[in-house]
Amino acid sequence: MSELNQDQYLQDQQWMLKAIELARLGQYSTRPNPNVGCILVKDGQLVGHGFHPRAGQPHAEVFAMREAGEKAQRATAYVTLEPCAHYGRTPPCAKGLVEAGVARVVIACSDPNPLVAGKGVQILQDANIQVDVGICEQVAKDLNKGFLKAMATGMPYVRLKVASSLDGRTAMASGESKWITGSIARQDVQHWRAISGAVITGIQTVLADDPELNVRHLQDIDLTTIVQPKRIILDRQGRLPLTAKILKNPETVMVMGPFRQEIADLGVIQLTIQPLKELLQTLSKQHQVYDVMVEAGATLSTAFLQEGLVDEVISYVAPTFLGQSARAMFNSAFDTMAEQLRFKTIEVTQLGDDIRLNLIPSQETL
Amino acid sequence: MSELNQDQYLQDQQWMLKAIELARLGQYSTRPNPNVGCILVKDGQLVGHGFHPRAGQPHAEVFAMREAGEKAQRATAYVTLEPCAHYGRTPPCAKGLVEAGVARVVIACSDPNPLVAGKGVQILQDANIQVDVGICEQVAKDLNKGFLKAMATGMPYVRLKVASSLDGRTAMASGESKWITGSIARQDVQHWRAISGAVITGIQTVLADDPELNVRHLQDIDLTTIVQPKRIILDRQGRLPLTAKILKNPETVMVMGPFRQEIADLGVIQLTIQPLKELLQTLSKQHQVYDVMVEAGATLSTAFLQEGLVDEVISYVAPTFLGQSARAMFNSAFDTMAEQLRFKTIEVTQLGDDIRLNLIPSQETL
Repeated sequence: MSELNQDQYLQDQQWMLKAIELARLGQYSTRPNPNVGCILVKDGQLVGHGFHPRAGQPHAEVFAMREAGEKAQRATAYVTLEPCAHYGRTPPCAKGLVEAGVARVVIACSDPNPLVAGKGVQILQDANIQVDVGICEQVAKDLNKGFLKAMATGMPYVRLKVASSLDGRTAMASGESKWITGSIARQDVQHWRAISGAVITGIQTVLADDPELNVRHLQDIDLTTIVQPKRIILDRQGRLPLTAKILKNPETVMVMGPFRQEIADLGVIQLTIQPLKELLQTLSKQHQVYDVMVEAGATLSTAFLQEGLVDEVISYVAPTFLGQSARAMFNSAFDTMAEQLRFKTIEVTQLGDDIRLNLIPSQETL
Repeated sequence: MSELNQDQYLQDQQWMLKAIELARLGQYSTRPNPNVGCILVKDGQLVGHGFHPRAGQPHAEVFAMREAGEKAQRATAYVTLEPCAHYGRTPPCAKGLVEAGVARVVIACSDPNPLVAGKGVQILQDANIQVDVGICEQVAKDLNKGFLKAMATGMPYVRLKVASSLDGRTAMASGESKWITGSIARQDVQHWRAISGAVITGIQTVLADDPELNVRHLQDIDLTTIVQPKRIILDRQGRLPLTAKILKNPETVMVMGPFRQEIADLGVIQLTIQPLKELLQTLSKQHQVYDVMVEAGATLSTAFLQEGLVDEVISYVAPTFLGQSARAMFNSAFDTMAEQLRFKTIEVTQLGDDIRLNLIPSQETL
């Protein structure tokens, strides 16, 4: 990275944060593509802006360059992700920026995709364009947690949703559970589903609650513009009833279980029975599912936690006591504190009377 | 209340908030007296200020009037609690304000003490002083929750402290529990103890953990200036060992249990065995304990909750799973959601990796 003076650095940050806000406009619609935003600035003025809205549509840089026209010459481009260098559905953006004649490109984070990594920067530098990488890198990375992890490791980013009472219960012994958390918290769940490539649940949850697990409401968002997550049911004994509500939209359902012709006839993708870790790899590598949300009962949630497959716990806590005969949220039994599964709190949000904790595994004990 | 114009109202609020900040300086030292602050303002300038520092020392108004001297004449007095009208350890402040010649008195909240209520205002009004009551009332009331509740109802304000894992556990089955919450949360507990007239615990906790339950550290506060809370042990079978650490300072220990001469010999006050509700009344009426903090195990905590004696739950939640064989925080068993003990979240605070929830019983279900 070139040496930047302090003023320049602050200006770069401000423009990049705007580009990140643009990128975020695609958060519910670009999957499996990443969210990317781009701003072109010339003489301190914004001359072009854009974001990637949807797979198959132009990249952010293209929109920004179209708007800027000839003003792109000698402009600075702010891009939240390294411009692509390969011919995919669209021509490479790095070449486009060279042709548009920009003088400098500021990039928030490099592309971890082996097809692109460093190559976009190389194309730019070969054309004598100044390139600075790493401005607002962490904020930009947070926008594409799943994409970045999957490109780097072949595994999706897994969020485990849990909703419990203060005393750690998810339902009464009878199964009664509506509603422990309030409407604001339940609404918040929709956001996390909507940024996910797939929601995973267990057959027990389907049999007990008959959920749809789709996105039904997002504040100020037209639902027809979003990419609905796949709904994946783990059904090792092939018990999914054809009358389950989740099958109302079979084209976005996947089932892991023994092959059943009647399920196949609905157009549902069936996955062979495999361990959870392999399942996640399969989803990432074969189905371009990079963000997974687990919304399941205690047994499956505990399995994901115990096998160390959870990148983030999204924990809704309701201010109520359900008592000790109510169902526990976590099924494992430990004898000593040393065995505990400990997390680090990265975000605390009040949602009406409930709170949401975003937690990541603690390096100290996991 | 007189009609106030908007400018006057905003000015009144600003001065009163300053008076409340002054009052707060006494939060660890005035017990059993309430926290009170006073500011004298003349021609838009502060001419006197004070707070009540400690029982037996002058009231807030006295300090403010001493500082103002002759400038108190035709000044406005801002007082967080209605000035007293009775001769206690000090002469009545309402008379003092009359003699000092103030033109107007602004009061945040009336005194609920039957010896004072309304009488202070009456004395002032009889002297043709303009009196306005209710400015910043809620903020001022929050400073003296225990005092105000006790004066109005004869019962103390009861805070129940719980510290648990995300899955609602307070210790491993073996009793191992150090440390579920981190150092910042444990430090925070000291504040709540320090504003309490008494900390109540059960003999089981004393036998298992041998705690002292005193205040050992407060940020920027000289501990010799504070009033340590009483430590009250519920010991129905008289099992408290004379070697318990809590008896290192026996003068601030009370024990509810069968009479034991060896405990009396230490100077410990012994209370007869009585139901929890009567115990709270006894503490308020006979021992001037207006703020009670319960720091106990699941059995006693559950009893306070189940009997509806808890005004506020101070719940520390640590981001960890301890597993289902670990000890539950709440011992009751409910069959239906209708039986749940539901709360309203009044405050959420992140403390390192832990969070603190301040909860009050929800009117909806309790």
